Amino acid sequence: MPINRAASASVDVPRGLAGVVVTDTALGDVRGSEGFYHYRQYSAVELAQTRGFEDVWHLMVQGELPDAARSAAFAAQVGPLRRLPGDVRAALPAIAQAGARSGPLSGMRTALSLLGASKGFKPVYDIDADRRRADTLAASAAVPTLITALYRLGRGLEPVEPREDLPYAANYLYMLTGSEPDRARARAIEQYLISTIDHGFNASTFTARVIASTGADVAACLAGGIGALSGPLHGGAPSRALDTLDAIGTPDRIGPWIRERVLSGDRIMGFGHPVYRTEDPRSRMLRGIAQGFGGPRVDFAVEVERQVEAILAELKPGRELHTNVEFYAGVVMELCGLPREMFTPTFAAARVVGWCANILEQSEDTKIIRPAARYVGPVPPVAVPAAN
Amino acid sequence: MPINRAASASVDVPRGLAGVVVTDTALGDVRGSEGFYHYRQYSAVELAQTRGFEDVWHLMVQGELPDAARSAAFAAQVGPLRRLPGDVRAALPAIAQAGARSGPLSGMRTALSLLGASKGFKPVYDIDADRRRADTLAASAAVPTLITALYRLGRGLEPVEPREDLPYAANYLYMLTGSEPDRARARAIEQYLISTIDHGFNASTFTARVIASTGADVAACLAGGIGALSGPLHGGAPSRALDTLDAIGTPDRIGPWIRERVLSGDRIMGFGHPVYRTEDPRSRMLRGIAQGFGGPRVDFAVEVERQVEAILAELKPGRELHTNVEFYAGVVMELCGLPREMFTPTFAAARVVGWCANILEQSEDTKIIRPAARYVGPVPPVAVPAAN
Repeated sequence: MPINRAASASVDVPRGLAGVVVTDTALGDVRGSEGFYHYRQYSAVELAQTRGFEDVWHLMVQGELPDAARSAAFAAQVGPLRRLPGDVRAALPAIAQAGARSGPLSGMRTALSLLGASKGFKPVYDIDADRRRADTLAASAAVPTLITALYRLGRGLEPVEPREDLPYAANYLYMLTGSEPDRARARAIEQYLISTIDHGFNASTFTARVIASTGADVAACLAGGIGALSGPLHGGAPSRALDTLDAIGTPDRIGPWIRERVLSGDRIMGFGHPVYRTEDPRSRMLRGIAQGFGGPRVDFAVEVERQVEAILAELKPGRELHTNVEFYAGVVMELCGLPREMFTPTFAAARVVGWCANILEQSEDTKIIRPAARYVGPVPPVAVPAAN
Repeated sequence: MPINRAASASVDVPRGLAGVVVTDTALGDVRGSEGFYHYRQYSAVELAQTRGFEDVWHLMVQGELPDAARSAAFAAQVGPLRRLPGDVRAALPAIAQAGARSGPLSGMRTALSLLGASKGFKPVYDIDADRRRADTLAASAAVPTLITALYRLGRGLEPVEPREDLPYAANYLYMLTGSEPDRARARAIEQYLISTIDHGFNASTFTARVIASTGADVAACLAGGIGALSGPLHGGAPSRALDTLDAIGTPDRIGPWIRERVLSGDRIMGFGHPVYRTEDPRSRMLRGIAQGFGGPRVDFAVEVERQVEAILAELKPGRELHTNVEFYAGVVMELCGLPREMFTPTFAAARVVGWCANILEQSEDTKIIRPAARYVGPVPPVAVPAAN
C-alpha cells in the first residue's frame, strides 16, 4: 500500500514542531553558538572563498567536491540547461505582468512550476536516481534565466539569452544587465550565492522535503519551497537592510537614529539572528568583500554597524546583537549592480540548489511526512439543519 | 523578531512525524474505526446529501452553515470571482501546452500560482481577516475555470466562459463540456465535490499549513498543497480504479483476475484505505449515487466489489478490505461525463476549498512550523581541497 498508516497513538510536541527532529541529514548544519555553518563536511565560508558556484553545487547534489576534470564536465552538463523551452518563454510576458502586482518571488514560483511541466519532470519516486538528479539540475540551471527574464520583461526590456561560456554567477549578472560583468563583481556575487545555498533546516527547506516525501516532482517541491520563503515570518529580505541605511541617510544621523530605535524597542533591519549568538559568519565574509570594493557607501555601512553595537552595549548591556546576512548582502548586491527587487530572487536562486539537494536526500526515504491534528471543535455529529 | 528561535533541545518522534500532533483544528476529523468523517460538527456525508457545494464551502471558511439569505449572498459574492484576469487567460495556452508533457496537476499548480500573483494576493499575516478570506474565495472560485480552460486548450478547444447563474458544480460541468448538464449529473458531481473538500489531516493539507505558517500568500500555500497531492505516495487517483474495471473487462473474468491479484499479493486499485477499518463512508455514498443512475457499468462495478470481498474472505480470512473513495468516485465521474484526465483535478478543485479553510485556521497561529534535522555526515570542518 503506498499510503503509510498513521500511528494511532498521538504524540505531543512543542508548538511549531520546534526542536522536533524530522529527519537525519548529511547536507549540513548551523552551529549557532560557534558562528559556524557547513555544507557536508566543509565550512560553507571556506567553500565560498576557495571554490566556484558549480563546484559547491556539485558537492551538494553529487555528494563530493569535483576534481578539475569532473568540474569541467559538470559545467559542460549544466550550461546548456540554462536555455528555456519555447512554451515557457512564451508565457513569461504574462507571468511578468501578473508579477508586477505581487511579491518578487511569485513570478519565480509560477515560472519554475511551468518549467517543470514543460520539461516533463518525473516524480522523485519511481524513477532512477540519475533522472531525478537531472531534473534538479535542469531546474537549478534555468532559475537565473527565468528570474532575469521576468525582471527585464517587467521593465519592457527583452530577455538576454544565457551564455554557456560564462560561469553561473557571471552569466547571471550578464543576463540581468546585458553586459558581461567585471571579474571582481562576478566573483563577489558568486561568493554570496555560494554562502546562500543552504543554511540548516528552515521552513522552506522543510516544505520542499514534505512535498518530496509524497513523491511529487522537483518543480512541485521547489514551488512549495519558494512559497514558504516568501512568507514574512520566514525572514530574509536583504533590501530591508539597505532601506535602513537610506532611512539614516548621513553619518551624523546614525547615533540619534539608532538610539531612538533601540529606546523605543523597534527592530533594526539587518541586525539579529534567531540562531547565531555570535557574529553571523556570512556577514563577516560579506563585509570583507564589501570592504574590498570600498567607497563611501561601504564606509557608511561599517560605521552604522559599529555604532549599533556600541549603542547597544551602552543601552542594553549583555545583549549580543550583530549584523545578520541581510546587512552586508544588501551592500554587496548593490555594489554589484543588482536592483533591490532582485535581492530576494537572487537569494532564492542559490537556495534552489540547496532545496534540490534536500529533495534528493528526502527521496532516499520512502516514509511520507504526515503528522496529525487534534480535533477540538464541537462534538459531532450534530444534525445538519435544513437549507430552507 | 519575526523569526522564532528554534528550541535548543531536540525531540525524537516517530518517523515521518506519524501521530505527532502539530496543531489543533476545528475543521474536522476522520474516525477510521467508525467509518465516519466530519466537517466541523457535521457528518460530511450528511452535508453532501442535504446541502449545496457553496453552503459547505461557507461552512468551512466562515465557520457556519448559511441560512437562505446568507447562502444567496455568498453565491452572489463568489460567482463573479469565476472570471479570470486577462493576463492569466493570456498565459493559459502556454501552460496547457507545457502541461501536456506532465501530470494532470502541474498545469493547475502553475495557473493557480499565476492567478495569485495577478490578483495581488497578500500574505496571510499582516492583513485583516476579511482580505485574507477574500483571497481564499478568489482562488477557490477560479479553480474550476482554470482547470477546464487548461483541459479544453490542451485539446484545441476554446475555453468556455463561466456562468454566474449556475451553482458551482453545474457551472463546472458546463465549462468543461460547453453544455448545461442535466440536474441529476450536476447534483451527483456536487455531492462528490462536497464529500472531497476535506478528509482529516493529510500531507497536502499539512503542506498548505506549513507554508501558511510562514505568512505566505494563499496562492503559495495552494501551489504547495497541489504539489504534495501530486505525489504518488499521497494517494488519490480515481482513474486507477476505472483502469481496474477495464483491465478485468467482462463479468466472467472477475473471479480469475481477482484471485490472481490476491494470490500474487498485488494491490487492487480502488480497494483499501490507510485509516478506515470499515467501509469508506464516501464509497458507500458514491455507490448509492451510481446505482441511482444504474446501467451495465454500475452493475459491473458492484459485482467486482462483491467478488473482491468474497474472494478475500475466502483467501485472506480476517483481512478487512473495502472499496475506497477512488472506486465509486471514478464510476460516478465517468457517468457524469468527466474525462479520466480530469478526475484528479476535479478532486483537487474541491480540496482547494478545504486547504483554504486550513490556511485561514493556520493564520490564526503566529508560530511558524519549523522542525529540526540531525546532522549525521562526516564531522566538520574538513579542510576544503584545492580546486584542481
